[in-house]
Amino acid sequence: MAKIDVYDTTLRDGTQGEGISFSLADKIKIVKLLDELGVSYIEAGIPASNPKDAELFACLAEIKLKHAKIAAFGSTHRIGVPVEQDSAVKALIDAGAPVVTIFGKAWDLHVKEVFHARLSENLDIIRETVCYVKSFGKEVIFDAEHFFDGYKQNREYALSSLNAAKSAGADIICLCDTNGAAFPDEISSIVAEVKAYLGGTKLAIHCHNDVGVAVSNTLLGVFAGAEQVQGTMNGFGERCGNANLCTIIPNLQLKRGYDLVPKESLKKLKSISRHIYELANIVPDERKPYVGGMAFAHKGGMHIDAVLKNPVTFEHISPENVGNERKLLMSEMSGRALVYDIIRKFEPDTKKDAPVISEILDEIKRLENEGYQFEGAESSFELMVLKKLGFYKPQFQLEQFQVIAAAPAKSQYTATAMIKICVGDTAEITAAEGEGPVNALDKALRKALYRFYPELKNTRLIDFKVRVLDGSKTGTAALTRVLMESTDGRTNWSTVGVSEDILEASWRALVDSVDYYMLDIKRNKHTERSKATC
Amino acid sequence: MAKIDVYDTTLRDGTQGEGISFSLADKIKIVKLLDELGVSYIEAGIPASNPKDAELFACLAEIKLKHAKIAAFGSTHRIGVPVEQDSAVKALIDAGAPVVTIFGKAWDLHVKEVFHARLSENLDIIRETVCYVKSFGKEVIFDAEHFFDGYKQNREYALSSLNAAKSAGADIICLCDTNGAAFPDEISSIVAEVKAYLGGTKLAIHCHNDVGVAVSNTLLGVFAGAEQVQGTMNGFGERCGNANLCTIIPNLQLKRGYDLVPKESLKKLKSISRHIYELANIVPDERKPYVGGMAFAHKGGMHIDAVLKNPVTFEHISPENVGNERKLLMSEMSGRALVYDIIRKFEPDTKKDAPVISEILDEIKRLENEGYQFEGAESSFELMVLKKLGFYKPQFQLEQFQVIAAAPAKSQYTATAMIKICVGDTAEITAAEGEGPVNALDKALRKALYRFYPELKNTRLIDFKVRVLDGSKTGTAALTRVLMESTDGRTNWSTVGVSEDILEASWRALVDSVDYYMLDIKRNKHTERSKATC
Repeated sequence: MAKIDVYDTTLRDGTQGEGISFSLADKIKIVKLLDELGVSYIEAGIPASNPKDAELFACLAEIKLKHAKIAAFGSTHRIGVPVEQDSAVKALIDAGAPVVTIFGKAWDLHVKEVFHARLSENLDIIRETVCYVKSFGKEVIFDAEHFFDGYKQNREYALSSLNAAKSAGADIICLCDTNGAAFPDEISSIVAEVKAYLGGTKLAIHCHNDVGVAVSNTLLGVFAGAEQVQGTMNGFGERCGNANLCTIIPNLQLKRGYDLVPKESLKKLKSISRHIYELANIVPDERKPYVGGMAFAHKGGMHIDAVLKNPVTFEHISPENVGNERKLLMSEMSGRALVYDIIRKFEPDTKKDAPVISEILDEIKRLENEGYQFEGAESSFELMVLKKLGFYKPQFQLEQFQVIAAAPAKSQYTATAMIKICVGDTAEITAAEGEGPVNALDKALRKALYRFYPELKNTRLIDFKVRVLDGSKTGTAALTRVLMESTDGRTNWSTVGVSEDILEASWRALVDSVDYYMLDIKRNKHTERSKATC
Repeated sequence: MAKIDVYDTTLRDGTQGEGISFSLADKIKIVKLLDELGVSYIEAGIPASNPKDAELFACLAEIKLKHAKIAAFGSTHRIGVPVEQDSAVKALIDAGAPVVTIFGKAWDLHVKEVFHARLSENLDIIRETVCYVKSFGKEVIFDAEHFFDGYKQNREYALSSLNAAKSAGADIICLCDTNGAAFPDEISSIVAEVKAYLGGTKLAIHCHNDVGVAVSNTLLGVFAGAEQVQGTMNGFGERCGNANLCTIIPNLQLKRGYDLVPKESLKKLKSISRHIYELANIVPDERKPYVGGMAFAHKGGMHIDAVLKNPVTFEHISPENVGNERKLLMSEMSGRALVYDIIRKFEPDTKKDAPVISEILDEIKRLENEGYQFEGAESSFELMVLKKLGFYKPQFQLEQFQVIAAAPAKSQYTATAMIKICVGDTAEITAAEGEGPVNALDKALRKALYRFYPELKNTRLIDFKVRVLDGSKTGTAALTRVLMESTDGRTNWSTVGVSEDILEASWRALVDSVDYYMLDIKRNKHTERSKATC
């Protein structure tokens, strides 16, 4: 299997994306995660840009990595400053990373209009910088900025910028589509031509996603001779992001047999992707190939039927290969086979034609007509099955609640909830204030339950979604569906409630959340379930 | 410029995506939006699948569209049932759409393992179904399901399935990458070969994004001879989604000079994309090419500097071409013209550089940071401008309200609202019951106002939407945005409110709705506005 280097720039190009920033501790965690994944290079930052990056390089010098080499990123030296006196170049060398990636200009327009240099001067600057950094024994990667735009407007000049870097001893030359506007029908021939032009020098490709083809261009670059792919985890990066390594790595390794990362670590891809989303405090894009929560989700009845007959009909790989899993979505469209699968978790001896299956299918239909939706609310679904099977026992009885929301003249809005519940023969009455009626009721219920179920103190809501089902019919009295996701820090579970009354819908989802957690603890199923990503 | 048909399947393939469902009213809105964008075909649904889709086709028959033809989607006829007796085929014809899209199997594995038919039998079924539907004078598109997988495993058979459709009179043949696993280096040669094989028959391409290259494959399909692109708005669709038309349309039209939609309507692309996200109740992906809020956002200092020197350095197109905007200059440039336009409705003599414009732009920024969004809430936007201009006078003063929602033991949930308001020196106090706290408050407010503003009796809410902005941070106390659409039977207007308290957010949108209507009546602008769409 041909080896392809993975060069990750999540910590540098990734952080140029809007809303993405990492603390020093986050960055060190990400370096370790990337090393665990088995990438070959980690571009950690720009040592000259700020003290935080400089500190990071100092920390990284102390950490022993299994797979990855650390790269420091910076520009060619400034015009009019001799390379050995350029403080940014000095910072690059002083960072102590074994690899230095130097970006330089390959587009004549950019040289003239932004860099304000003569064309030949820019070539000298590339040559001098690469040569100088090489003299410190560094491995040097030359990033040819705007290479594809440059090539299309002044082919000779773009190529001569590469040649300047090569002749000065650059180990790897990277073709950057900085504006992310190259088209897939251009990449192959350009990369192949450069490959021939440069002879034996190793080529890398670095794409952005501004026309939505960064992954494709990277693949085509490899097929045309590039031996290194540059990108970011989850496609983080400026504007529309960089080429997404979470897609590129499995594409090349699972589909075309290239060797990018150790086979076993590919199974951690989804979990590492999630961990990095979490550190970036960005909600994961569940529609992303391979690692998204929906990547192997099936909803249409015919599709579910086909996948159960033979997975290849609607699954291009086995989800386990990237640590993901198949998700059969509960909906009107889906069928018997799916319900059977779930019942067997509780009653393994159930037959395929047991009448309870039809009863449950009827119940799903009835509830879906009422506005329920069990995709994304698997725990409410399980509770419904348990009820039908006669296994369900409520964890508490509601005696009453009363929520008062008020807006007194010229002062703050307030919301308070009073609640009385019973567990067995013991009653508890309490109250709480909150941000609005739903939040007040949520807090009061939890407060009332802690006395009986102290375990609940470990739980909290991590997502709350409200969907007005058809506000066009009845305005504020429209049917409303509330989805909640809860966690105890180790596992997550999701529940649903539907009503014309938004408070009642929220209440139902809340009750399911509590019931499910307590039943689950009692089933001792707890430890079996997969760990939450945290 | 070569014409390329845009075939939109947001309403069919799009809704097979997890978490995507539309009401009938939503679907009609989407059809109108797509027609406004200027697509050639709109696949509206599967008439045989459920009564909701059948109702949709009946409504669509009444609507006159400028650009788009409506297509009904369904399968080839069932095995063992003569085509003229197949109820699903009958439903396809009865739907009354001028175009019928029939999907059939092109992959031998699928025919054998899922369809359980003999290979020749499947070809007969394709032929019979296409021929039968053609006999009703329909334009027929044949969707060759799993075509690329089929081609790679049994080239002869895959091609013969196309030939079966062609020989039966299909007008257009569509090559579907149903599993979304085709690679960009395969597409061109396969499409070109099929093109030659089928002679003059028009070819379409339909890609999914499971390996992250749906857009790229669609482009390559067109370059190899396809004359129709199938996809969805925002890339909605099963698993990782369909090819994203919001990327494909500008790619082909702006970059390669193909003719897909009217040039002017391309400028509405971002706003239509947003509107459809909103109807789907899905948070827009701001990193999406062309239409994402970050697509032209510049963060890196060097990049900002370069963009200011010459935009082409880091912008592959002018964002205005797709109705988007450069983020860094938002407050100075893009908002300005819009705000200027609105101000002139009230103060026709306002100068382009009036300081109030900057004040309003600052206010927009502040409110957007708070979670407001004025797209789909134009009336709240106008009110905000009126406030800044000093023209706003509230229609009433709130003295206080109190909402009580209760769940007494074993009986119905109830919600009541008491409200006291003043108009001038006259106070009114009243109360109402409702379905939940929001509805009770809505009813009480209207009741209190009727005495002063009997015109309000003609008005009602026709849409009510709740969006929890980030439920993952604070659960039931998350920031919530409420959008309301109101009507008096002749015109519609839309308002917005934001708060951590769902009741307060609803209250703000309600107050805006009343204020706007009464101000509008007083301006006597009423009759000038366009008639409500119903």
